[in-house]
Amino acid sequence: MIKVAVDAMGGDNAPGEVIKGAVEAVSDRRDIQVLLVGKEDVVSQELKGYSYPKDQIQVIPASEVIETEEPPVNAIRRKKDSSIVVAMNLVKNGEADAFVSAGSSGAILVGGQVIVGRLKGVERPPFGALIPTETGVSLLLDSGANVDARPSHLVQFARMGSIYMEHVIGISRPRVGIVNIGAEEEKGNALVKETFPKLKACRDIHFTGSIEAREIPHGGADVIVCEAFTGNVILKLYEGVGSTLISMVKKGMMVTLRSKIGALLVKPALKETLKKFDASQYGGAPLLGLKGLVVKTHGNAKAGEIRNSIIQCVTFKEQQINEKIKESLDAEEQDIEQ
Amino acid sequence: MIKVAVDAMGGDNAPGEVIKGAVEAVSDRRDIQVLLVGKEDVVSQELKGYSYPKDQIQVIPASEVIETEEPPVNAIRRKKDSSIVVAMNLVKNGEADAFVSAGSSGAILVGGQVIVGRLKGVERPPFGALIPTETGVSLLLDSGANVDARPSHLVQFARMGSIYMEHVIGISRPRVGIVNIGAEEEKGNALVKETFPKLKACRDIHFTGSIEAREIPHGGADVIVCEAFTGNVILKLYEGVGSTLISMVKKGMMVTLRSKIGALLVKPALKETLKKFDASQYGGAPLLGLKGLVVKTHGNAKAGEIRNSIIQCVTFKEQQINEKIKESLDAEEQDIEQ
Repeated sequence: MIKVAVDAMGGDNAPGEVIKGAVEAVSDRRDIQVLLVGKEDVVSQELKGYSYPKDQIQVIPASEVIETEEPPVNAIRRKKDSSIVVAMNLVKNGEADAFVSAGSSGAILVGGQVIVGRLKGVERPPFGALIPTETGVSLLLDSGANVDARPSHLVQFARMGSIYMEHVIGISRPRVGIVNIGAEEEKGNALVKETFPKLKACRDIHFTGSIEAREIPHGGADVIVCEAFTGNVILKLYEGVGSTLISMVKKGMMVTLRSKIGALLVKPALKETLKKFDASQYGGAPLLGLKGLVVKTHGNAKAGEIRNSIIQCVTFKEQQINEKIKESLDAEEQDIEQ
Repeated sequence: MIKVAVDAMGGDNAPGEVIKGAVEAVSDRRDIQVLLVGKEDVVSQELKGYSYPKDQIQVIPASEVIETEEPPVNAIRRKKDSSIVVAMNLVKNGEADAFVSAGSSGAILVGGQVIVGRLKGVERPPFGALIPTETGVSLLLDSGANVDARPSHLVQFARMGSIYMEHVIGISRPRVGIVNIGAEEEKGNALVKETFPKLKACRDIHFTGSIEAREIPHGGADVIVCEAFTGNVILKLYEGVGSTLISMVKKGMMVTLRSKIGALLVKPALKETLKKFDASQYGGAPLLGLKGLVVKTHGNAKAGEIRNSIIQCVTFKEQQINEKIKESLDAEEQDIEQ
């Protein structure tokens, strides 16, 4: 049985969609117990609308809510009874294996580091976001945790990301690429130029060199390593261009009578294709390198994404990702010492 | 009469598409003279296949070609008779008003600075790329010229970009946004945090604050300012996600008989819509802040993009963009002196 704490109060669609997602997860899987953390009356009231295996959902009271606009360090320090702080403490104390939240990224990042704590040797825990590609899915990290990173951080991202893609997603020898503005080794900014040889020298990853942003949607690498500013720009632009184009395609099909009839005919097939390009099916972005598992979903996550994020925690736990990260970093340390 | 030097040897589709584009430009406009720079026999041979107003195209011989892979500084120094160096010299000596090339970005950048030269006061000439949005077009700069820029460079990009959008594209009081990973002023990396107040204090631009990458395709700002690494990632991802989605939509419509019939019906309307999202219709990216006009098109530019880039030079020249940039930077200098 995997215990997943879920932030019932976090995100644009909380608590409704969050609770719906939790109910869906426990209805699908007998091996998950969800701890719904939030305002007790609100959560219990919402739960009444569903039928689900009662032994698989427990409500954990938390009277406060951290808003997205709040400065995260202050919020984590002051709002001791917020859903995020209470849930993080459950993970820290071993009462939960994982935590899923659609709430403030900043607070999740700070809480993850301060309350749950980093694994020994991890310098900066990155957000690893799964992004859809033409051929499957890639892991983009750091997708927004720490800006202005150093080369050693990027090397750790590559190691942790490789472990994640191999054992959670099931891609053997995942190809690692560093985001760059040209294919040649001598291209790039100062950070990339300094990181490139370090990745090349890293023995436990399958480094395939630079990846230009154009190649990302084509599935040019399985693990895409970059600094968090660049990563966040990539993640958000990916979603922005995708949604803009899809809405333009929809509008474009509605301009003439002829095209409207055509739209009715292509709709089912098109829907199936575009589903492949929908980030929410892959669940949220784990904050890698913590002593427990913390997963951030999109702020506007609907029930489906919450459900998928909860289920994703099972594989993470079963595959002992954190143990594997620890081993990898220990081996790295020994390498340096020798 | 505007004289535009065109690199007949640059790009993946040279000389065929380049020469075709030049012929199209002079066939459409009586006020343009094209100087086709490249291997004389090759260019003359290719030209024989077209009928066009003979007085509007002149062949300027250049025996060498700079390849994309060549280190740019060396190439510009050594290949004195390359199409890029010969054409840049035409601009420098006033024999041409502008230069259009689909060749090596690096060589165009180095040649632009070393041969054509920067306008007095310009610290770093950025590539300004026009990108399509839901509502029209935005200027992204720096889209790839100089990585690791300083705040003062970004402020100059904002000033030059505003002048370009106002006078070449015709948007009055263009909104200037700085690419950021959150909407609030305190978000961002060190560069953005330092640049933000400087842009806010800049009196001759209409600064509207941070723009998240998600908002770029929705037309969230007219002038999008960022450092060249980020800018190049945005530009290439834009194209990558766009082309991937369009190819997925096309494939998606071909899976069932029903959808195939629908595809035939929606095709014309859809084509019209997606044309709006095609970057090549806007022509190439000017290298702003030089003593002459230098425009870089996509490496894989077809005739249409070459034609549009040549025609774009007329507006640039007529609107005296360089004179306006000089005035703006002079005013800035006086501001600082006071």
